[in-house]
Amino acid sequence: MDAAWTVRPMGVLATPWRTLDECPRNGRQPDPAPLCRVRVFRQFVPGLKSLEGFSHLILLYWLDQVREPKLTFVPPFDGEERGVFATRSPARPNPIGLSVVRFEGLEALDMLRVRYLDCVDGTPLLDIKPYLRTTDAEPDATMAWLERHATRRCD
Amino acid sequence: MDAAWTVRPMGVLATPWRTLDECPRNGRQPDPAPLCRVRVFRQFVPGLKSLEGFSHLILLYWLDQVREPKLTFVPPFDGEERGVFATRSPARPNPIGLSVVRFEGLEALDMLRVRYLDCVDGTPLLDIKPYLRTTDAEPDATMAWLERHATRRCD
Repeated sequence: MDAAWTVRPMGVLATPWRTLDECPRNGRQPDPAPLCRVRVFRQFVPGLKSLEGFSHLILLYWLDQVREPKLTFVPPFDGEERGVFATRSPARPNPIGLSVVRFEGLEALDMLRVRYLDCVDGTPLLDIKPYLRTTDAEPDATMAWLERHATRRCD
Repeated sequence: MDAAWTVRPMGVLATPWRTLDECPRNGRQPDPAPLCRVRVFRQFVPGLKSLEGFSHLILLYWLDQVREPKLTFVPPFDGEERGVFATRSPARPNPIGLSVVRFEGLEALDMLRVRYLDCVDGTPLLDIKPYLRTTDAEPDATMAWLERHATRRCD
């Protein structure tokens, strides 16, 4: 398949982390998790209607700091070679980041308050989806090689 | 921001549904949920290393059947106008679909067996991520206007 498609930013993420090195391993690692903001470009604001009342959202964003994908690599915290699709590494063939965030309401018509982001300040937003516990929550999921590196939840 | 980026398929999804009209509302609606397959293009197969043992995966795919985004619309099962970012409608500004699927192992080096997909047969795959219950499972999440339309879980 030689297909290719174009994605465009619909907003931008504001976080406390200015470089990749400053970013936490995931958004639930910092305790307490800092407040982050999602600014939605004006033309997309009508799409936010009815977002109030969802406690959690899924954000997709473009990992624009990543230079090149690595199909396999040795994670610094592990020591064995792993395939990128068995990790949440940002250096993926299509560098789309995903976070399940807590939604703390609108600060302005075009500004969401969220917690649990883990990306660099200024990361471009691609999509906002409502988190549905009926299809997205698998609290008993097993985590293979990542089991022993699991982040302690602090919520 | 005038930026734009290119995404490319890394595989293709095989499902029982040939048209958008045949697709279930979500992958957990059919009971029993049919077996689906994920074919990964050969050059990306090394990235599957260490995938065994994850019970669930997150698949991102390109909703290539969608013509045009609709920022607001009236869902057929609801009756009020909703913003697209408060829905899982495929007609999004960046038409990236997301499913949390049960992973039932590799059928071949380049072929995954999964359940809970809801998209058209032949949908292009963009990414595979391991599902991490420590950051992705929010079993108590509230679902706002979608609460009363929730799909009964059959697993």
